[in-house]
Amino acid sequence: MTRQELVSLIQERRSFLCVGLDTDPAKMPEHLRNAQDGIFQFNRAIIDATIDLCVAYKPNIAFYEALGLEGLRQLKLTMDYIHSLQKPVFTIADAKRGDIGNTSERYAKAFLDPQGDFNFDAITVAPYMGADSVTPFTVYPGKWVILLALTSNKGAFDFQLTEDKNGTPLYQRVLETSKQWGKEDNMMYVVGATKAEMLTDVRRIVPGSFLLVPGVGAQGGSLEEVCRYGLNNDCGLLVNSSRGIIYASPGTDFAEAAAREARKLQQQMDAVL
Amino acid sequence: MTRQELVSLIQERRSFLCVGLDTDPAKMPEHLRNAQDGIFQFNRAIIDATIDLCVAYKPNIAFYEALGLEGLRQLKLTMDYIHSLQKPVFTIADAKRGDIGNTSERYAKAFLDPQGDFNFDAITVAPYMGADSVTPFTVYPGKWVILLALTSNKGAFDFQLTEDKNGTPLYQRVLETSKQWGKEDNMMYVVGATKAEMLTDVRRIVPGSFLLVPGVGAQGGSLEEVCRYGLNNDCGLLVNSSRGIIYASPGTDFAEAAAREARKLQQQMDAVL
Repeated sequence: MTRQELVSLIQERRSFLCVGLDTDPAKMPEHLRNAQDGIFQFNRAIIDATIDLCVAYKPNIAFYEALGLEGLRQLKLTMDYIHSLQKPVFTIADAKRGDIGNTSERYAKAFLDPQGDFNFDAITVAPYMGADSVTPFTVYPGKWVILLALTSNKGAFDFQLTEDKNGTPLYQRVLETSKQWGKEDNMMYVVGATKAEMLTDVRRIVPGSFLLVPGVGAQGGSLEEVCRYGLNNDCGLLVNSSRGIIYASPGTDFAEAAAREARKLQQQMDAVL
Repeated sequence: MTRQELVSLIQERRSFLCVGLDTDPAKMPEHLRNAQDGIFQFNRAIIDATIDLCVAYKPNIAFYEALGLEGLRQLKLTMDYIHSLQKPVFTIADAKRGDIGNTSERYAKAFLDPQGDFNFDAITVAPYMGADSVTPFTVYPGKWVILLALTSNKGAFDFQLTEDKNGTPLYQRVLETSKQWGKEDNMMYVVGATKAEMLTDVRRIVPGSFLLVPGVGAQGGSLEEVCRYGLNNDCGLLVNSSRGIIYASPGTDFAEAAAREARKLQQQMDAVL
Protein backbone atom coordinates (compact mmCIF):
# COMPACT_ATOMS: atom_id res chain seq x y z
CA MET A 1 0.00 0.00 0.00
CA THR A 2 1.48 3.34 -1.03
CA ARG A 3 1.62 6.36 1.24
CA GLN A 4 -1.10 8.09 -0.76
CA GLU A 5 -3.35 5.05 -0.49
CA LEU A 6 -2.77 4.91 3.25
CA VAL A 7 -3.52 8.61 3.69
CA SER A 8 -6.71 8.23 1.62
CA LEU A 9 -7.78 5.21 3.67
CA ILE A 10 -7.34 7.19 6.89
CA GLN A 11 -9.48 10.01 5.50
CA GLU A 12 -12.14 7.63 4.24
CA ARG A 13 -12.49 5.55 7.41
CA ARG A 14 -11.99 8.59 9.66
CA SER A 15 -9.58 6.45 11.65
CA PHE A 16 -5.88 5.82 12.12
CA LEU A 17 -6.44 2.83 14.36
CA CYS A 18 -4.26 -0.25 14.09
CA VAL A 19 -5.67 -3.38 15.73
CA GLY A 20 -2.98 -5.61 17.22
CA LEU A 21 -3.73 -9.26 16.56
CA ASP A 22 -1.71 -10.57 19.52
CA THR A 23 -3.85 -13.65 19.68
CA ASP A 24 -3.29 -15.85 22.72
CA PRO A 25 -5.29 -19.09 22.88
CA ALA A 26 -5.43 -18.83 26.68
CA LYS A 27 -7.31 -15.53 26.41
CA MET A 28 -9.68 -16.53 23.63
CA PRO A 29 -13.29 -17.44 24.46
CA GLU A 30 -13.54 -21.00 25.64
CA HIS A 31 -15.45 -22.31 22.62
CA LEU A 32 -12.55 -21.35 20.31
CA ARG A 33 -9.65 -22.56 22.44
CA ASN A 34 -9.71 -26.10 21.21
CA ALA A 35 -11.56 -25.53 17.96
CA GLN A 36 -10.06 -26.42 14.59
CA ASP A 37 -8.22 -23.28 13.37
CA GLY A 38 -9.40 -21.54 16.54
CA ILE A 39 -6.86 -18.72 16.30
CA PHE A 40 -7.82 -18.01 12.72
CA GLN A 41 -11.50 -18.13 13.62
CA PHE A 42 -10.90 -15.66 16.43
CA ASN A 43 -8.90 -13.33 14.15
CA ARG A 44 -11.49 -13.52 11.39
CA ALA A 45 -14.28 -12.55 13.77
CA ILE A 46 -12.20 -9.63 15.11
CA ILE A 47 -11.41 -8.51 11.56
CA ASP A 48 -15.03 -8.72 10.41
CA ALA A 49 -16.10 -6.69 13.44
CA THR A 50 -13.45 -3.97 13.19
CA ILE A 51 -12.39 -3.51 9.58
CA ASP A 52 -14.62 -0.47 9.00
CA LEU A 53 -13.23 1.17 12.13
CA CYS A 54 -9.49 0.72 11.59
CA VAL A 55 -6.92 1.09 8.83
CA ALA A 56 -4.38 -1.53 9.88
CA TYR A 57 -3.89 -4.94 11.46
CA LYS A 58 -0.70 -5.84 13.27
CA PRO A 59 -0.21 -9.48 14.22
CA ASN A 60 2.69 -9.80 16.64
CA ILE A 61 4.59 -12.68 15.10
CA ALA A 62 5.83 -13.99 18.47
CA PHE A 63 2.30 -15.03 19.40
CA TYR A 64 2.14 -17.30 16.35
CA GLU A 65 5.72 -18.59 16.53
CA ALA A 66 5.13 -19.61 20.15
CA LEU A 67 2.66 -22.18 18.80
CA GLY A 68 5.16 -23.58 16.31
CA LEU A 69 4.37 -24.44 12.72
CA GLU A 70 0.68 -24.72 13.59
CA GLY A 71 0.61 -21.11 14.81
CA LEU A 72 2.27 -19.87 11.64
CA ARG A 73 -0.20 -21.83 9.54
CA GLN A 74 -3.02 -19.96 11.28
CA LEU A 75 -1.21 -16.67 10.70
CA LYS A 76 -1.14 -17.52 7.02
CA LEU A 77 -4.88 -18.31 7.06
CA THR A 78 -5.42 -14.91 8.69
CA MET A 79 -3.37 -13.09 6.06
CA ASP A 80 -5.06 -15.03 3.24
CA TYR A 81 -8.40 -13.96 4.66
CA ILE A 82 -7.39 -10.29 4.85
CA HIS A 83 -6.15 -10.42 1.25
CA SER A 84 -9.43 -12.02 0.14
CA LEU A 85 -11.51 -9.10 1.45
CA GLN A 86 -12.73 -6.39 -0.88
CA LYS A 87 -11.77 -3.76 1.69
CA PRO A 88 -8.26 -2.36 1.69
CA VAL A 89 -6.36 -2.47 4.96
CA PHE A 90 -2.69 -1.98 5.86
CA THR A 91 -0.95 -5.02 7.37
CA ILE A 92 2.07 -4.95 9.66
CA ALA A 93 4.20 -7.95 10.64
CA ASP A 94 5.30 -6.96 14.13
CA ALA A 95 8.40 -9.12 13.90
CA LYS A 96 11.26 -6.89 15.14
CA ARG A 97 13.70 -8.51 12.76
CA GLY A 98 17.12 -7.32 11.58
CA ASP A 99 20.37 -9.05 10.59
CA ILE A 100 23.33 -8.51 8.25
CA GLY A 101 22.40 -7.41 4.74
CA ASN A 102 22.11 -10.74 2.92
CA THR A 103 20.10 -12.14 5.84
CA SER A 104 17.73 -9.17 6.21
CA GLU A 105 16.98 -9.68 2.52
CA ARG A 106 15.56 -13.05 3.49
CA TYR A 107 13.46 -11.67 6.31
CA ALA A 108 12.13 -9.08 3.86
CA LYS A 109 11.25 -11.87 1.45
CA ALA A 110 9.59 -13.89 4.23
CA PHE A 111 7.20 -11.11 5.21
CA LEU A 112 6.89 -8.64 2.32
CA ASP A 113 7.21 -10.68 -0.88
CA PRO A 114 3.86 -10.60 -2.74
CA GLN A 115 4.55 -14.21 -3.80
CA GLY A 116 5.35 -15.32 -0.25
CA ASP A 117 3.15 -16.97 2.36
CA PHE A 118 2.27 -13.73 4.16
CA ASN A 119 2.57 -10.67 1.88
CA PHE A 120 2.46 -8.02 4.61
CA ASP A 121 2.58 -4.31 3.75
CA ALA A 122 5.13 -3.58 6.46
CA ILE A 123 7.44 -5.12 9.02
CA THR A 124 8.92 -3.78 12.27
CA VAL A 125 12.73 -3.88 12.37
CA ALA A 126 15.29 -3.32 15.15
CA PRO A 127 18.05 -0.79 14.35
CA TYR A 128 20.96 -2.17 16.39
CA MET A 129 22.81 -3.65 13.41
CA GLY A 130 22.64 -0.47 11.32
CA ALA A 131 22.11 0.45 7.67
CA ASP A 132 22.63 -2.85 5.87
CA SER A 133 20.28 -4.60 8.30
CA VAL A 134 17.46 -2.16 7.46
CA THR A 135 17.73 -1.16 3.80
CA PRO A 136 16.79 -4.62 2.39
CA PHE A 137 13.29 -4.01 3.74
CA THR A 138 12.86 -0.85 1.65
CA VAL A 139 13.15 -2.39 -1.81
CA TYR A 140 9.67 -3.85 -2.31
CA PRO A 141 7.45 -1.27 -4.06
CA GLY A 142 4.59 -0.11 -1.88
CA LYS A 143 6.02 -1.92 1.15
CA TRP A 144 7.35 -0.40 4.34
CA VAL A 145 9.95 -0.87 7.04
CA ILE A 146 8.90 0.34 10.49
CA LEU A 147 12.05 0.99 12.48
CA LEU A 148 12.11 0.82 16.27
CA ALA A 149 13.01 4.22 17.66
CA LEU A 150 11.50 4.64 21.12
CA THR A 151 9.65 1.64 22.48
CA SER A 152 6.98 1.63 25.19
CA ASN A 153 8.52 -0.91 27.56
CA LYS A 154 10.56 -0.39 30.72
CA GLY A 155 13.71 -1.66 29.00
CA ALA A 156 13.54 1.29 26.60
CA PHE A 157 15.41 3.23 29.28
CA ASP A 158 18.40 0.88 29.18
CA PHE A 159 19.88 2.03 25.87
CA GLN A 160 17.43 4.09 23.81
CA LEU A 161 17.81 7.16 26.04
CA THR A 162 21.59 6.91 26.41
CA GLU A 163 23.03 10.25 25.34
CA ASP A 164 26.08 10.52 23.13
CA LYS A 165 28.80 13.14 23.55
CA ASN A 166 26.56 15.80 22.02
CA GLY A 167 23.71 14.98 24.36
CA THR A 168 21.70 13.23 21.65
CA PRO A 169 19.81 10.18 22.94
CA LEU A 170 20.29 6.98 20.94
CA TYR A 171 16.68 6.91 19.69
CA GLN A 172 17.15 10.38 18.16
CA ARG A 173 20.37 9.26 16.57
CA VAL A 174 18.50 6.31 15.09
CA LEU A 175 15.91 8.72 13.64
CA GLU A 176 18.58 11.09 12.25
CA THR A 177 20.77 8.39 10.76
CA SER A 178 18.01 6.26 9.30
CA LYS A 179 16.51 9.17 7.38
CA GLN A 180 19.22 8.45 4.81
CA TRP A 181 18.15 4.81 4.48
CA GLY A 182 14.59 5.27 3.33
CA LYS A 183 11.97 7.83 2.44
CA GLU A 184 8.74 9.03 3.92
CA ASP A 185 6.92 6.64 1.62
CA ASN A 186 8.71 3.46 2.68
CA MET A 187 9.92 4.02 6.24
CA MET A 188 7.96 4.59 9.44
CA TYR A 189 9.04 4.59 13.09
CA VAL A 190 7.82 2.91 16.25
CA VAL A 191 7.41 5.52 18.98
CA GLY A 192 5.87 4.41 22.27
CA ALA A 193 2.83 6.26 23.56
CA THR A 194 3.92 6.13 27.18
CA LYS A 195 6.27 9.01 26.44
CA ALA A 196 3.95 11.19 24.35
CA GLU A 197 5.74 14.47 25.06
CA MET A 198 8.84 13.02 23.43
CA LEU A 199 6.88 13.04 20.18
CA THR A 200 7.81 16.73 19.98
CA ASP A 201 11.47 15.77 19.63
CA VAL A 202 10.56 12.98 17.21
CA ARG A 203 8.54 15.36 15.02
CA ARG A 204 11.44 17.83 14.95
CA ILE A 205 13.60 15.14 13.33
CA VAL A 206 11.05 13.31 11.17
CA PRO A 207 8.20 15.80 10.62
CA GLY A 208 6.72 14.03 7.62
CA SER A 209 7.11 10.37 8.57
CA PHE A 210 4.37 8.06 9.71
CA LEU A 211 4.73 6.87 13.31
CA LEU A 212 3.40 3.56 14.60
CA VAL A 213 2.41 4.21 18.18
CA PRO A 214 1.92 1.16 20.39
CA GLY A 215 0.96 1.36 24.01
CA VAL A 216 -2.35 3.19 23.88
CA GLY A 217 -4.75 1.49 26.26
CA ALA A 218 -3.34 -1.50 28.15
CA GLN A 219 0.19 -0.09 28.08
CA GLY A 220 -1.03 3.21 29.54
CA GLY A 221 -0.65 5.81 26.78
CA SER A 222 -3.21 8.52 26.08
CA LEU A 223 -4.61 8.98 22.58
CA GLU A 224 -5.19 12.66 23.20
CA GLU A 225 -1.55 13.29 24.10
CA VAL A 226 -0.30 11.24 21.17
CA CYS A 227 -2.39 13.35 18.78
CA ARG A 228 -1.38 16.64 20.38
CA TYR A 229 2.31 15.96 19.83
CA GLY A 230 2.32 13.52 16.94
CA LEU A 231 -0.17 14.49 14.22
CA ASN A 232 1.11 16.02 10.99
CA ASN A 233 -0.58 17.26 7.81
CA ASP A 234 -1.06 13.72 6.46
CA CYS A 235 -2.17 12.46 9.89
CA GLY A 236 1.17 10.66 10.12
CA LEU A 237 0.04 8.33 12.88
CA LEU A 238 -1.01 4.73 13.19
CA VAL A 239 -2.12 4.16 16.77
CA ASN A 240 -2.19 0.57 17.89
CA SER A 241 -4.40 -1.08 20.45
CA SER A 242 -4.26 -4.83 21.02
CA ARG A 243 -5.50 -6.22 24.33
CA GLY A 244 -7.96 -3.37 24.92
CA ILE A 245 -9.81 -4.38 21.76
CA ILE A 246 -9.37 -8.07 21.11
CA TYR A 247 -9.89 -9.15 24.73
CA ALA A 248 -12.60 -6.63 25.55
CA SER A 249 -14.86 -9.55 26.45
CA PRO A 250 -13.85 -13.11 27.39
CA GLY A 251 -17.20 -14.48 26.22
CA THR A 252 -18.87 -15.39 22.95
CA ASP A 253 -19.60 -11.68 22.41
CA PHE A 254 -15.85 -10.95 22.01
CA ALA A 255 -16.22 -9.62 18.47
CA GLU A 256 -19.05 -7.22 19.34
CA ALA A 257 -17.06 -6.06 22.37
CA ALA A 258 -14.01 -5.56 20.15
CA ALA A 259 -16.09 -3.47 17.72
CA ARG A 260 -17.39 -1.39 20.61
CA GLU A 261 -13.88 -0.61 21.89
CA ALA A 262 -12.58 0.02 18.37
CA ARG A 263 -15.48 2.38 17.71
CA LYS A 264 -14.67 4.39 20.85
CA LEU A 265 -11.15 4.95 19.58
CA GLN A 266 -12.35 5.59 16.01
CA GLN A 267 -14.75 8.27 17.24
CA GLN A 268 -11.98 9.99 19.17
CA MET A 269 -9.85 9.82 16.04
CA ASP A 270 -12.65 11.16 13.87
CA ALA A 271 -12.92 14.16 16.17
CA VAL A 272 -9.22 14.85 15.81
CA LEU A 273 -8.98 14.47 12.04
CA MET B 1 23.07 -27.96 27.46
CA THR B 2 24.73 -26.64 30.61
CA ARG B 3 27.96 -24.67 30.60
CA GLN B 4 29.86 -27.62 32.07
CA GLU B 5 28.51 -29.92 29.36
CA LEU B 6 29.51 -27.44 26.68
CA VAL B 7 33.02 -27.04 28.09
CA SER B 8 33.39 -30.83 28.27
CA LEU B 9 32.18 -31.21 24.70
CA ILE B 10 34.77 -28.69 23.52
CA GLN B 11 37.52 -30.60 25.31
CA GLU B 12 36.33 -33.94 23.97
CA ARG B 13 35.97 -32.90 20.33
CA ARG B 14 39.02 -30.64 20.49
CA SER B 15 36.95 -28.05 18.70
CA PHE B 16 34.93 -24.91 19.36
CA LEU B 17 33.57 -24.76 15.85
CA CYS B 18 29.98 -23.77 15.16
CA VAL B 19 28.70 -24.66 11.70
CA GLY B 20 26.21 -22.13 10.35
CA LEU B 21 23.33 -23.86 8.58
CA ASP B 22 22.44 -20.86 6.38
CA THR B 23 20.97 -23.15 3.79
CA ASP B 24 20.05 -21.47 0.52
CA PRO B 25 18.37 -23.69 -2.12
CA ALA B 26 20.04 -21.65 -4.89
CA LYS B 27 23.48 -22.65 -3.57
CA MET B 28 22.73 -26.31 -2.92
CA PRO B 29 23.91 -28.98 -5.37
CA GLU B 30 21.56 -29.25 -8.27
CA HIS B 31 20.26 -32.72 -7.43
CA LEU B 32 18.88 -31.44 -4.11
CA ARG B 33 17.37 -28.18 -5.29
CA ASN B 34 14.04 -29.61 -6.32
CA ALA B 35 14.18 -32.78 -4.26
CA GLN B 36 11.53 -33.58 -1.65
CA ASP B 37 12.81 -32.12 1.66
CA GLY B 38 15.93 -30.99 -0.21
CA ILE B 39 16.97 -28.47 2.45
CA PHE B 40 16.67 -31.05 5.18
CA GLN B 41 18.58 -33.60 3.07
CA PHE B 42 21.33 -31.05 2.54
CA ASN B 43 21.48 -30.20 6.26
CA ARG B 44 21.49 -33.84 7.28
CA ALA B 45 24.42 -34.60 4.99
CA ILE B 46 26.33 -31.59 6.35
CA ILE B 47 25.59 -32.66 9.92
CA ASP B 48 26.63 -36.28 9.33
CA ALA B 49 29.87 -35.06 7.76
CA THR B 50 30.80 -32.49 10.43
CA ILE B 51 29.37 -33.51 13.79
CA ASP B 52 32.63 -35.01 15.05
CA LEU B 53 34.48 -31.83 14.11
CA CYS B 54 32.23 -29.20 15.65
CA VAL B 55 30.35 -28.53 18.87
CA ALA B 56 27.46 -26.44 17.60
CA TYR B 57 25.05 -25.88 14.71
CA LYS B 58 23.52 -22.50 14.04
CA PRO B 59 20.70 -22.33 11.52
CA ASN B 60 20.02 -18.72 10.59
CA ILE B 61 16.24 -18.61 10.88
CA ALA B 62 15.86 -16.03 8.08
CA PHE B 63 16.97 -18.59 5.50
CA TYR B 64 14.09 -20.86 6.51
CA GLU B 65 11.47 -18.13 6.99
CA ALA B 66 12.23 -16.84 3.49
CA LEU B 67 10.77 -20.11 2.19
CA GLY B 68 7.59 -19.73 4.21
CA LEU B 69 5.94 -22.50 6.17
CA GLU B 70 7.69 -25.07 3.99
CA GLY B 71 11.10 -23.74 5.02
CA LEU B 72 10.21 -23.86 8.70
CA ARG B 73 8.96 -27.42 8.30
CA GLN B 74 12.39 -28.37 6.96
CA LEU B 75 14.04 -26.55 9.87
CA LYS B 76 11.94 -28.68 12.20
CA LEU B 77 13.03 -31.84 10.36
CA THR B 78 16.62 -30.69 10.79
CA MET B 79 16.21 -30.10 14.52
CA ASP B 80 14.36 -33.40 14.96
CA TYR B 81 17.27 -35.11 13.24
CA ILE B 82 19.86 -33.44 15.48
CA HIS B 83 17.87 -34.43 18.57
CA SER B 84 17.66 -38.03 17.32
CA LEU B 85 21.43 -38.40 17.16
CA GLN B 86 23.34 -40.11 19.95
CA LYS B 87 25.97 -37.38 19.80
CA PRO B 88 25.53 -34.23 21.86
CA VAL B 89 25.78 -30.92 20.04
CA PHE B 90 24.86 -27.35 20.99
CA THR B 91 22.14 -25.76 18.84
CA ILE B 92 21.68 -22.04 18.25
CA ALA B 93 18.63 -20.39 16.68
CA ASP B 94 20.21 -17.39 15.00
CA ALA B 95 16.98 -15.44 15.13
CA LYS B 96 17.96 -11.99 16.49
CA ARG B 97 14.63 -11.64 18.28
CA GLY B 98 13.63 -9.27 21.07
CA ASP B 99 10.39 -7.53 22.06
CA ILE B 100 8.62 -6.28 25.19
CA GLY B 101 8.64 -8.74 28.10
CA ASN B 102 5.40 -10.65 27.53
CA THR B 103 6.26 -10.98 23.84
CA SER B 104 9.86 -12.08 24.31
CA GLU B 105 8.42 -14.82 26.54
CA ARG B 106 6.69 -16.13 23.44
CA TYR B 107 9.82 -16.00 21.30
CA ALA B 108 11.62 -17.90 24.07
CA LYS B 109 8.86 -20.51 24.03
CA ALA B 110 9.00 -20.74 20.23
CA PHE B 111 12.71 -21.56 20.13
CA LEU B 112 13.79 -22.90 23.54
CA ASP B 113 10.82 -24.80 24.95
CA PRO B 114 11.72 -28.52 25.16
CA GLN B 115 8.08 -29.29 24.24
CA GLY B 116 8.13 -26.92 21.26
CA ASP B 117 8.73 -27.62 17.58
CA PHE B 118 12.43 -26.69 17.68
CA ASN B 119 13.94 -27.06 21.18
CA PHE B 120 17.14 -25.11 20.54
CA ASP B 121 19.79 -24.72 23.25
CA ALA B 122 20.23 -21.02 22.55
CA ILE B 123 18.86 -18.05 20.63
CA THR B 124 20.47 -14.82 19.47
CA VAL B 125 18.70 -11.69 20.73
CA ALA B 126 19.02 -7.97 19.89
CA PRO B 127 19.53 -5.66 22.89
CA TYR B 128 17.84 -2.45 21.67
CA MET B 129 14.69 -2.89 23.79
CA GLY B 130 16.58 -3.52 27.03
CA ALA B 131 16.23 -5.74 30.08
CA ASP B 132 12.66 -7.00 29.82
CA SER B 133 13.21 -7.94 26.18
CA VAL B 134 16.14 -10.18 27.11
CA THR B 135 15.48 -11.76 30.52
CA PRO B 136 12.59 -13.99 29.34
CA PHE B 137 15.16 -15.97 27.35
CA THR B 138 17.15 -16.82 30.52
CA VAL B 139 14.48 -18.79 32.37
CA TYR B 140 14.71 -22.18 30.66
CA PRO B 141 17.16 -24.42 32.59
CA GLY B 142 20.22 -25.29 30.52
CA LYS B 143 19.21 -22.86 27.77
CA TRP B 144 20.99 -19.71 26.69
CA VAL B 145 20.45 -16.23 25.37
CA ILE B 146 23.17 -14.95 23.05
CA LEU B 147 23.01 -11.17 23.07
CA LEU B 148 24.23 -9.08 20.14
CA ALA B 149 27.10 -6.90 21.29
CA LEU B 150 29.40 -6.15 18.36
CA THR B 151 28.30 -7.53 15.01
CA SER B 152 30.49 -8.20 11.99
CA ASN B 153 28.61 -6.17 9.36
CA LYS B 154 29.26 -2.69 8.04
CA GLY B 155 26.17 -1.34 9.80
CA ALA B 156 27.76 -2.18 13.15
CA PHE B 157 29.48 1.21 12.90
CA ASP B 158 26.17 3.10 12.78
CA PHE B 159 25.21 2.72 16.44
CA GLN B 160 27.25 0.04 18.21
CA LEU B 161 30.38 2.18 18.36
CA THR B 162 28.59 5.41 19.34
CA GLU B 163 30.26 6.67 22.51
CA ASP B 164 28.28 8.00 25.44
CA LYS B 165 29.32 10.96 27.56
CA ASN B 166 31.94 8.85 29.35
CA GLY B 167 33.43 7.67 26.07
CA THR B 168 31.92 4.19 26.40
CA PRO B 169 30.79 2.73 23.07
CA LEU B 170 27.24 1.37 23.01
CA TYR B 171 28.36 -2.25 22.60
CA GLN B 172 30.40 -2.00 25.79
CA ARG B 173 27.45 -0.47 27.58
CA VAL B 174 25.35 -3.42 26.38
CA LEU B 175 27.95 -5.81 27.84
CA GLU B 176 28.16 -3.92 31.16
CA THR B 177 24.42 -3.50 31.62
CA SER B 178 23.40 -6.98 30.53
CA LYS B 179 25.72 -8.65 33.03
CA GLN B 180 22.97 -8.01 35.56
CA TRP B 181 20.39 -9.79 33.42
CA GLY B 182 21.96 -13.23 33.22
CA LYS B 183 24.89 -15.32 34.34
CA GLU B 184 27.87 -16.88 32.69
CA ASP B 185 25.90 -20.11 32.44
CA ASN B 186 22.90 -18.74 30.56
CA MET B 187 24.13 -15.68 28.64
CA MET B 188 26.66 -15.41 25.81
CA TYR B 189 27.52 -12.55 23.47
CA VAL B 190 27.87 -12.14 19.72
CA VAL B 191 31.18 -10.45 18.94
CA GLY B 192 32.18 -10.11 15.29
CA ALA B 193 35.53 -11.47 14.22
CA THR B 194 36.25 -8.63 11.82
CA LYS B 195 37.26 -6.53 14.82
CA ALA B 196 39.30 -9.11 16.72
CA GLU B 197 41.42 -6.62 18.63
CA MET B 198 38.24 -5.29 20.20
CA LEU B 199 37.97 -8.65 21.95
CA THR B 200 40.46 -7.26 24.46
CA ASP B 201 37.89 -4.69 25.55
CA VAL B 202 35.15 -7.31 25.51
CA ARG B 203 37.20 -9.65 27.72
CA ARG B 204 37.87 -6.84 30.20
CA ILE B 205 34.10 -6.53 30.73
CA VAL B 206 32.97 -10.16 30.42
CA PRO B 207 36.07 -12.26 31.15
CA GLY B 208 34.22 -15.48 31.89
CA SER B 209 31.43 -15.39 29.32
CA PHE B 210 31.21 -17.45 26.17
CA LEU B 211 31.40 -15.45 22.96
CA LEU B 212 29.80 -16.50 19.69
CA VAL B 213 32.09 -15.21 16.98
CA PRO B 214 30.64 -15.01 13.48
CA GLY B 215 32.56 -13.78 10.51
CA VAL B 216 35.51 -16.15 10.38
CA GLY B 217 36.07 -17.12 6.77
CA ALA B 218 33.70 -15.56 4.23
CA GLN B 219 33.22 -12.45 6.37
CA GLY B 220 36.97 -11.94 6.62
CA GLY B 221 37.91 -12.63 10.23
CA SER B 222 41.02 -14.54 11.30
CA LEU B 223 40.74 -17.50 13.68
CA GLU B 224 44.23 -16.88 15.02
CA GLU B 225 43.42 -13.30 16.02
CA VAL B 226 40.11 -14.31 17.57
CA CYS B 227 41.90 -16.88 19.74
CA ARG B 228 44.70 -14.50 20.72
CA TYR B 229 42.28 -11.96 22.13
CA GLY B 230 39.21 -14.04 22.96
CA LEU B 231 40.14 -17.35 24.63
CA ASN B 232 39.61 -17.77 28.36
CA ASN B 233 40.22 -20.62 30.81
CA ASP B 234 37.07 -22.47 29.71
CA CYS B 235 37.82 -21.76 26.04
CA GLY B 236 34.91 -19.30 26.11
CA LEU B 237 34.55 -19.19 22.34
CA LEU B 238 32.22 -20.61 19.75
CA VAL B 239 33.58 -19.66 16.34
CA ASN B 240 31.10 -19.84 13.51
CA SER B 241 31.70 -20.59 9.87
CA SER B 242 28.81 -20.92 7.45
CA ARG B 243 29.44 -20.40 3.74
CA GLY B 244 33.08 -21.49 3.94
CA ILE B 245 31.96 -24.93 5.09
CA ILE B 246 28.51 -25.68 3.72
CA TYR B 247 29.21 -24.34 0.23
CA ALA B 248 32.79 -25.58 -0.02
CA SER B 249 31.76 -27.51 -3.13
CA PRO B 250 28.76 -26.90 -5.39
CA GLY B 251 28.75 -30.55 -6.50
CA THR B 252 27.56 -33.88 -5.18
CA ASP B 253 30.69 -34.00 -3.00
CA PHE B 254 29.45 -31.04 -0.92
CA ALA B 255 29.40 -33.02 2.33
CA GLU B 256 32.96 -34.33 1.94
CA ALA B 257 34.10 -30.83 1.04
CA ALA B 258 32.32 -29.47 4.11
CA ALA B 259 34.06 -32.04 6.30
CA ARG B 260 37.41 -31.08 4.78
CA GLU B 261 36.92 -27.39 5.55
CA ALA B 262 35.55 -28.13 9.01
CA ARG B 263 38.55 -30.35 9.73
CA LYS B 264 40.95 -27.56 8.77
CA LEU B 265 39.35 -25.29 11.33
CA GLN B 266 39.10 -28.07 13.92
CA GLN B 267 42.82 -28.80 13.57
CA GLN B 268 43.68 -25.14 14.08
CA MET B 269 41.41 -25.14 17.12
CA ASP B 270 42.98 -28.33 18.46
CA ALA B 271 46.39 -26.68 18.27
CA VAL B 272 45.13 -23.72 20.28
CA LEU B 273 43.32 -25.69 23.01
